[in-house]
Amino acid sequence: MSKGITSKEVDYSQWYNDIVVKAGLADHSSVRGCMVIKPNGFAIWEKIQQTLDKMFKDTGHVNAYFPLFIPKSYLSKEAAHVEGFAKECAVVTHYRLKNSADGKGVVVDPEAKLEEELIVRPTSETIIWNTYKNWIQSYRDLPILVNQWANVVRWEMRTRLFLRTAEFLWQEGHTAHATEKEAREEALKMHDVYADFAENFLAIPVLKGYKTESERFAGALDTYTIEMLMQDGKALQGGTSHFLGQNFAKAFDVTFATEKGDSDHVWASSWGVSTRLVGALIMAHSDDSGLVLPPKIAPTQVVIVPIFKGEDQLKQIKEKLDPIIKFLQDKNISVKFDGSEHKKPGWKFAEYELQGVPIRVAIGPRDLENNTVEIARRDTKEKQIIGIDEVSSFVPQLLDTIQKDLLEKAKAFRKEHTTEVDTYDDFKKILESKGGFVMAHWDGTAETEEKIKQETKATIRCVLLNNESEEGKCVYSGKSSKQRVVFAKAY
Amino acid sequence: MSKGITSKEVDYSQWYNDIVVKAGLADHSSVRGCMVIKPNGFAIWEKIQQTLDKMFKDTGHVNAYFPLFIPKSYLSKEAAHVEGFAKECAVVTHYRLKNSADGKGVVVDPEAKLEEELIVRPTSETIIWNTYKNWIQSYRDLPILVNQWANVVRWEMRTRLFLRTAEFLWQEGHTAHATEKEAREEALKMHDVYADFAENFLAIPVLKGYKTESERFAGALDTYTIEMLMQDGKALQGGTSHFLGQNFAKAFDVTFATEKGDSDHVWASSWGVSTRLVGALIMAHSDDSGLVLPPKIAPTQVVIVPIFKGEDQLKQIKEKLDPIIKFLQDKNISVKFDGSEHKKPGWKFAEYELQGVPIRVAIGPRDLENNTVEIARRDTKEKQIIGIDEVSSFVPQLLDTIQKDLLEKAKAFRKEHTTEVDTYDDFKKILESKGGFVMAHWDGTAETEEKIKQETKATIRCVLLNNESEEGKCVYSGKSSKQRVVFAKAY
Repeated sequence: MSKGITSKEVDYSQWYNDIVVKAGLADHSSVRGCMVIKPNGFAIWEKIQQTLDKMFKDTGHVNAYFPLFIPKSYLSKEAAHVEGFAKECAVVTHYRLKNSADGKGVVVDPEAKLEEELIVRPTSETIIWNTYKNWIQSYRDLPILVNQWANVVRWEMRTRLFLRTAEFLWQEGHTAHATEKEAREEALKMHDVYADFAENFLAIPVLKGYKTESERFAGALDTYTIEMLMQDGKALQGGTSHFLGQNFAKAFDVTFATEKGDSDHVWASSWGVSTRLVGALIMAHSDDSGLVLPPKIAPTQVVIVPIFKGEDQLKQIKEKLDPIIKFLQDKNISVKFDGSEHKKPGWKFAEYELQGVPIRVAIGPRDLENNTVEIARRDTKEKQIIGIDEVSSFVPQLLDTIQKDLLEKAKAFRKEHTTEVDTYDDFKKILESKGGFVMAHWDGTAETEEKIKQETKATIRCVLLNNESEEGKCVYSGKSSKQRVVFAKAY
Repeated sequence: MSKGITSKEVDYSQWYNDIVVKAGLADHSSVRGCMVIKPNGFAIWEKIQQTLDKMFKDTGHVNAYFPLFIPKSYLSKEAAHVEGFAKECAVVTHYRLKNSADGKGVVVDPEAKLEEELIVRPTSETIIWNTYKNWIQSYRDLPILVNQWANVVRWEMRTRLFLRTAEFLWQEGHTAHATEKEAREEALKMHDVYADFAENFLAIPVLKGYKTESERFAGALDTYTIEMLMQDGKALQGGTSHFLGQNFAKAFDVTFATEKGDSDHVWASSWGVSTRLVGALIMAHSDDSGLVLPPKIAPTQVVIVPIFKGEDQLKQIKEKLDPIIKFLQDKNISVKFDGSEHKKPGWKFAEYELQGVPIRVAIGPRDLENNTVEIARRDTKEKQIIGIDEVSSFVPQLLDTIQKDLLEKAKAFRKEHTTEVDTYDDFKKILESKGGFVMAHWDGTAETEEKIKQETKATIRCVLLNNESEEGKCVYSGKSSKQRVVFAKAY
């Protein structure tokens, strides 16, 4: 029973959009480029938030909150940063409206013009480092390990729900350190946290690497990335962690008295992931029946659909299952019992498939007689009959199994869609046929990188950390190369 | 040992600011009117958020997220709303910057002017009801019980950390219903949730009432409020819940097919509390040594300060207390053991008093010999020696006691600062002397309300729900009145 989702074989992009809209995850708003995150979508984001927030706190971070607005001049203080961020952004120029002369609405009050325009934050390095200046005097004030959950705005012309919107939600960590070593270690630690989260919660395997200079965050000395592969063979950057060196400390004049008694600029890292991860989740696992969610991120992990006629049967089923529901809930498994009478079981089956609930338990009067239930896995759609007494032990195990299987399946897909190529012809052929990650030699120049991008739309996703060195020749220029890098078309 | 906090008897306003700044709760930012919420302050807000979020979910609500920006024309659609909110607000007029001609910075690109200006949301009724139009067709789509955690902006000229800032954090619930009765019940239910939260978590007693017409939310038919009393005798509005009738449904043309088969406009409520509650917490309980926090909201509930010389002593103390710390943590009590060596115990005592940690446990070598610890309550500063073996049972009980005592103390203060007056002279005298809530007869007219406000700065905080009817004469006009209402000077 389909819910009218376009098959992903027919039109991947439409398939994605159908799932987002029909599963009630998000929708376009009437404000250009901004989305409404609907309750079903926000529940997934909340699971992501809660999990990451705990991981951040477990690694010593605390949350804080900085202003939404950034004075225009701040953006210009770090040379690379302004190039990257001070372009497409929302500019606040006035602070008051007044009744229009015709009495039919409101107009901007020309007398309430700001002396300096304010930019709605596209990212917060500048306002935060301007603040850290007041927080840091001595090495005793370091490190500062702060994270912020916030909305940011980047004026995007072509938007796509979750993947690219003008406003999006994210977290941004901003840390300050006394030494270069410590700041770089922090950036790498958070890179590890992101990879751990992606693989063990989202069930999405990631390539861990660093960006080439042209793909780096504007203002960073190094950008570490986790790169994911979507089912259409395109890559998606899942999160980045930046080693910022002393760039922002220098731009905002943040120095500290060192333990030795001299003065130095503070070292920095920043790192972020966004609501984009909800898009990644959908694209990594879902199918033509709708969402497939890894159990650890699914807002509802188990749905119980009773098949009944009349209140007596419903009551019988409910009573039989109540202790099991309680048992599972006590194990922190989220269980929904859908005893609503105005929807048919078939409708409910399709609806919870669309919603990606990992396990469905169905039980009717005959099951009750036989003391059995039917268990259906969302990921494989396999069904099996088990005894009611087994449910309490079976369900937690099956959730674990689904979590693992989703990761394994995604790993197998990635393996199949990772190709070493040694000629530019093969490079282009692979990109056009199966896509995926293409491992190729590159001469290390931004010119070649740019040419390849223009000709094939593929970009260097990353250079793997701990990459094996290998003698070879650049697929484009034929110049010598010491290692392969990861190319792909990307979101 | 003081941390340089101005006494509240000397300068209440400076006392408040000193606590906020010295306890590291918040600070003014370089962006006019916007504050930075520092980690210590944000940790309190997180406790408030987590507690309320659970209460909202337990009453059937789900979270969602709507755009930061509101098209200017939306504000004009509801007549009262535009008067209340479309004045002092941040207006986005452009979406791009470009390099300035002199190459020294960036300027607004005049070619990137928006066709219609966007307002940074001061509250979200308009954008949300514009969205609900797409969500609601039939009575089956109702009720919608949605909450949003978000930042909002109201351009305030005179700001005060937490209490009144241009940008602040809040939650706003927006619900849609098929009947007037249900919508009003929802508004009252959330009013109850706020009162419950204020009294049982913040330990702040509240008056529950409704606002007069002139103090109502712009666009509401009724505004229910919880009114708190601060230690300087001024009132603070802690949260409001609005019955919006069909005003926004009519403004945005949101109708639904009723169960009977006809069509009607949807009924609405909205309700919100903000980071202002952190300000209320400070003003309700704190003293000249710093913050006093109710245990249920304190990010750290127990701090253990070892008094030691050298690592061996520290290790001995730590080993002795480790099982107790673990026991308390297993009971979800947050315990911090501060074994740092570069700060003296006296400094730590003062610091944790400033931070408002409800219980301090001190233990030195002599205590170790005697198998005792010293327990200090932050609220009363009482100290007592107890056996180490008693700590596990004593601490949870004491946390409960402190929670209750803080509420009782605040109730006693309120009782003492609530005065019935029958003449305008007494009215003014009480306001000028002890302040607090003044219960007085009022003739029910907006004119009298306005006159009293102009002459005394006191406003009608609310008319109590279930107010006793009582014959009397308006303190101002002498006209007849059926009930007393609650006046106060307010934040």
